[in-house]
Amino acid sequence: MNLVPPAVERLAAEFGRLPGVGPKTAQRLTFHCLVAPRESVERLAAALAELRGSVRPCGRCYFIAEGELCGICANPRRDPASICVVEDALDVLAIERSGEFGGVYHVLQGAISPIDGVGPAQIRVDELVQRLEAGGVSEVIVATDPDVEGEATAHYLAERLASTGVTVSRLAHGLPAGSNVQYADELTVARAFAGRRAI
Amino acid sequence: MNLVPPAVERLAAEFGRLPGVGPKTAQRLTFHCLVAPRESVERLAAALAELRGSVRPCGRCYFIAEGELCGICANPRRDPASICVVEDALDVLAIERSGEFGGVYHVLQGAISPIDGVGPAQIRVDELVQRLEAGGVSEVIVATDPDVEGEATAHYLAERLASTGVTVSRLAHGLPAGSNVQYADELTVARAFAGRRAI
Repeated sequence: MNLVPPAVERLAAEFGRLPGVGPKTAQRLTFHCLVAPRESVERLAAALAELRGSVRPCGRCYFIAEGELCGICANPRRDPASICVVEDALDVLAIERSGEFGGVYHVLQGAISPIDGVGPAQIRVDELVQRLEAGGVSEVIVATDPDVEGEATAHYLAERLASTGVTVSRLAHGLPAGSNVQYADELTVARAFAGRRAI
Repeated sequence: MNLVPPAVERLAAEFGRLPGVGPKTAQRLTFHCLVAPRESVERLAAALAELRGSVRPCGRCYFIAEGELCGICANPRRDPASICVVEDALDVLAIERSGEFGGVYHVLQGAISPIDGVGPAQIRVDELVQRLEAGGVSEVIVATDPDVEGEATAHYLAERLASTGVTVSRLAHGLPAGSNVQYADELTVARAFAGRRAI
């Protein structure tokens, strides 16, 4: 005999499909929704239902937008000649927080990962090439993650964009600010040595 | 200028109200919902919207139920003379998994915590007393958590139920199965000594 009503099982299954939410967490969130004020559960349901109605990827860079273009592409004070290529939309927010970049973005929506069946065709590489072919771009900064997939994607982009004449660079690797040398992993230390600069 | 559309902010805020979900996780879940298949987001929204329509607390024990009574209270093979008192519905599932208990439950929906403004009147203590006054109950097993709030609740219940003539016991404290003595905290070791049994 099943103790948990189907509606509860169903919600736990849906929570469990979210990234980073395991079966235990999904069950805890579901049981929270059972005892939380009814309005708060309804607000969450409404926010989810509403999300995809009003928000879509930007028609140019694939960052999130409410209209045709996102707030960055639509901003005339951003420099369209400089494109920073990132894996997903959250990376845009992290770079914007740094305040270091005044250009525009291109969100690949993924990284090349043959093991997961993700090749260049599964992410928005062709769309990036089309933006470069349309002209007016002088610099591409590849800001994919410093992991295997991000590196593979960066190398692929460097080769693919070599013929366009556009300067292609990659964000520096090294010790993160506020960290300790003694706690850094070997690869980070190796890259910090390789990228050392005169002071 | 705000880069994130209001619908996205709203969903992140609602996710952030779930227990154990901080602002970073809420943002990650929200951005996942932006790129996930539209149907999966709609299924989660529907499961949330549906939950509180069909599921409510059991009219007797406050565990989850689809009708008037939950699957345990409605089961004639469970012994209604033995009531296990727990803090919340997830505790019922954990005890059911052990297969050790054939009685029925009483879900307090919380524990006494003066710091959080939760006294006996804020949890379902009166409802428990009413069940005992209705007669037919011979044993109450208090299975509140082995933490400050759970202990305070257990002591309060022991005093409050003393006059009913019902046997009140508390789940044993000690070393968890499969653990190591060397990693156990002092209080657990102290309780394991206090509760030692002849072998």
